[in-house]
Amino acid sequence: MSLGIVFLSEVFGTAMLTLLGCGVVANVALKGTKGNNGGFLMVTWGWGIAVFSGVYVAAQSGAHLNPAVTFGLLLNGKKLYAPGVPVDFASTLTYFGGELLGAFLGAIVMWLAHKQHFDVEPEPASKLAVFSTGPAIRSNQWNLITEIIGTFVLVFVILTFGGTPSGLGPLSVALLVVGIGVSLGGPTGYAINPARDLGPRIAHALLPIKGKGSSDWSYSWIPVVGPLIGGGLAGIVAAVVPIIAPVIPH
Amino acid sequence: MSLGIVFLSEVFGTAMLTLLGCGVVANVALKGTKGNNGGFLMVTWGWGIAVFSGVYVAAQSGAHLNPAVTFGLLLNGKKLYAPGVPVDFASTLTYFGGELLGAFLGAIVMWLAHKQHFDVEPEPASKLAVFSTGPAIRSNQWNLITEIIGTFVLVFVILTFGGTPSGLGPLSVALLVVGIGVSLGGPTGYAINPARDLGPRIAHALLPIKGKGSSDWSYSWIPVVGPLIGGGLAGIVAAVVPIIAPVIPH
Amino acid sequence: MSLGIVFLSEVFGTAMLTLLGCGVVANVALKGTKGNNGGFLMVTWGWGIAVFSGVYVAAQSGAHLNPAVTFGLLLNGKKLYAPGVPVDFASTLTYFGGELLGAFLGAIVMWLAHKQHFDVEPEPASKLAVFSTGPAIRSNQWNLITEIIGTFVLVFVILTFGGTPSGLGPLSVALLVVGIGVSLGGPTGYAINPARDLGPRIAHALLPIKGKGSSDWSYSWIPVVGPLIGGGLAGIVAAVVPIIAPVIPH
Amino acid sequence: MSLGIVFLSEVFGTAMLTLLGCGVVANVALKGTKGNNGGFLMVTWGWGIAVFSGVYVAAQSGAHLNPAVTFGLLLNGKKLYAPGVPVDFASTLTYFGGELLGAFLGAIVMWLAHKQHFDVEPEPASKLAVFSTGPAIRSNQWNLITEIIGTFVLVFVILTFGGTPSGLGPLSVALLVVGIGVSLGGPTGYAINPARDLGPRIAHALLPIKGKGSSDWSYSWIPVVGPLIGGGLAGIVAAVVPIIAPVIPH
Repeated sequence: MSLGIVFLSEVFGTAMLTLLGCGVVANVALKGTKGNNGGFLMVTWGWGIAVFSGVYVAAQSGAHLNPAVTFGLLLNGKKLYAPGVPVDFASTLTYFGGELLGAFLGAIVMWLAHKQHFDVEPEPASKLAVFSTGPAIRSNQWNLITEIIGTFVLVFVILTFGGTPSGLGPLSVALLVVGIGVSLGGPTGYAINPARDLGPRIAHALLPIKGKGSSDWSYSWIPVVGPLIGGGLAGIVAAVVPIIAPVIPH
Repeated sequence: MSLGIVFLSEVFGTAMLTLLGCGVVANVALKGTKGNNGGFLMVTWGWGIAVFSGVYVAAQSGAHLNPAVTFGLLLNGKKLYAPGVPVDFASTLTYFGGELLGAFLGAIVMWLAHKQHFDVEPEPASKLAVFSTGPAIRSNQWNLITEIIGTFVLVFVILTFGGTPSGLGPLSVALLVVGIGVSLGGPTGYAINPARDLGPRIAHALLPIKGKGSSDWSYSWIPVVGPLIGGGLAGIVAAVVPIIAPVIPH
Repeated sequence: MSLGIVFLSEVFGTAMLTLLGCGVVANVALKGTKGNNGGFLMVTWGWGIAVFSGVYVAAQSGAHLNPAVTFGLLLNGKKLYAPGVPVDFASTLTYFGGELLGAFLGAIVMWLAHKQHFDVEPEPASKLAVFSTGPAIRSNQWNLITEIIGTFVLVFVILTFGGTPSGLGPLSVALLVVGIGVSLGGPTGYAINPARDLGPRIAHALLPIKGKGSSDWSYSWIPVVGPLIGGGLAGIVAAVVPIIAPVIPH
Repeated sequence: MSLGIVFLSEVFGTAMLTLLGCGVVANVALKGTKGNNGGFLMVTWGWGIAVFSGVYVAAQSGAHLNPAVTFGLLLNGKKLYAPGVPVDFASTLTYFGGELLGAFLGAIVMWLAHKQHFDVEPEPASKLAVFSTGPAIRSNQWNLITEIIGTFVLVFVILTFGGTPSGLGPLSVALLVVGIGVSLGGPTGYAINPARDLGPRIAHALLPIKGKGSSDWSYSWIPVVGPLIGGGLAGIVAAVVPIIAPVIPH
């Protein structure tokens, strides 16, 4: 498969991810929507199905949708990122670029879908929260640790999927993302994906959002670096510890 | 397959869709029900399973249940609407007609199931909300954009389903509809289906509902036109952009 | 298969159904539990998974768990209730008897699991609500209609399951039951199963429940007769209307 | 398979179980998290997906993750705990040890992920509740009965899984755990697993948690003994009662 197709596939898939994922936060956080104050469980289902939908859309490129997944596969020693896509410098950059651009574009479409509710929402912090994560209690050290743990779970469990036969397809990773959200999303809002956080943050900075405040760049490196460490660590541990069952052919 | 069977199949399937879909709104919105104020997440699960059930019922005709799906398949260039049903003028009209009639009939049965709660509900706007969608903030332009985006997601992701093997059957589209609801349903209540909105609106206008108000015909074209644009656009984009994986035979 | 096995299978399966199903109502309705006031959506998931679990337990006898299902299969003209179990007078009575006895026994175990919370709950109506359904607004005619419609949906959609390939197994009927709950459970609490309602009602009448009130026998015939009419009607309509797809062999 | 691999597999799987399972309680119970007061339904989904994830991770050793499951399989008369792992004294101890150590380690990682919220939470009882279960109304007899019933359901239904074909894989047991939670978790918080309760309780006792109180050792034997009785009983009943369908080969 050409890297152009990989790029396009990841752009569309990751755009679907942030359109639906940031969308559910908009529905819960912005003034006057029908799902206002819909609760944390609704947010986690929204993100889970956002991943679910993105996986279908980007199936052809293996649906990484997340630089931490790409990085975890790299450090795991995989030879292919997807059928026909060898792991090398160019393909790695193609995934990173497609993921970031897609996350940026999806956030813009999400904003269009909720334009009037951004206009009437008085609180700048709520507007930023729709695009990007922020910590409940700010601390570089502990926020980083939480993001590392959450992303380790994501990538490590994904790497075990092949060992258990099921017909769940993209539902497995969707449920896993719901689970990470409800169980490990409390302290930092579970970015667990550098593109999902940075792409929409850039969109927040560039878009003419009425009454917006800071894009909180001082926090922005944590949901990038933490997930990359967590995902990379998961790739290494999964390669070293001999517990992962041999992949079962479907 | 004869167009008579297609028609009957879509009538039954779309009736199941609005019986259960409008039913969950009745349960949440009408006075004195056991699920009163059950929350937006419950509404979205109700609609998701309404689609799930409708897909089983209308399996024989491909379970479009939605003119925006039919229109998206048409503009995508599909040769068949379902096994044995060629795409042509007559079959397209048959789908449209069956979907609209089914949505109308399902809403009547839903009303019968909740008759006493319509009788005791004091608010006319809540009665209409059970049947048809309305905007949180009224604006032709922005409401239309939201419906276009939501329906684009619906039809575009459906068109990618064949590329990922799974045993989820109708659960895939059910989860997708839950996801569109929680993530993009905040501003307009996600009609994303002209029949689902227009059929029950006609039922609302004709039925002897105690203390009912206006059927809000001035808004009624948006949940018809928006979904048709969004579904058609999805059909075209999916045909043009070479990212959708080749369909995997089950 | 011997009718003794069928009987035992339905007893165990339907006991699992009411143990978990009535259990979730106990958790939501009784004083001092950890899930107190957990909401209607939680109740519907509890009943859905109760059916899910009961279907696994009673797989050998086809897992009817519900006289309305048995009756629907009978009127549909099925030749077998399960592999090796011909439809006749003796087998029909065996299903009815096993279902009713199982529902009765499951409710007793449910009561044991929540014994202390029944003791501290002051409201007799809440205690009965754990065992059996009651109407939100009492009316023989309208309550009967609601139960007929809900059970029609249950049995009609079950009869279409074979026409759509999926690997969902018992999850299909579980989701359908969640859907009927959220969408049609508002007016009467969706008995949609004579055994599920009558068995626990008998248990309520016989058990030494502290501070219990009436078992509301004047209502008790509605969740028996309504579901039988609805299930029977579904069996007939599914036999007559030629929309149901031919069963696909798994 | 060597017992060393079995041990490692159960350690990793059960660590994943308590990391995510105790994590959702932390999110709901501790001050200042984003999911604070997220409700009982969210807690049960968190535990369900915790099991789901643990099953993938420990697939190679059959993913017991729970001494009550191991004990139930033993009393059921199984010859193998997993492909290549004969049932004997050494393997049984290996499962028990791996499960307990994993549950202990997972709780430590959970604590690290929520460190700052443990620091700001004023209530010692809330901190313990994150690690281990406690009764709503304390009574040795009735709390034991509730845990026996809950674990009986868990192990009995798991033993029936092979008789119904589906492609749900680990989702079946995840949904079962959600169901036991919502339906039987009200009185004692559904430990239904000695390792899940004892491992984190030891972690609670040893970790330097700011402002922690008692680890409630007087209750600690109930969520160990109750689940072992319930699981063992399920294994025996399933072996004796001839209702469980012959296992269908996938």
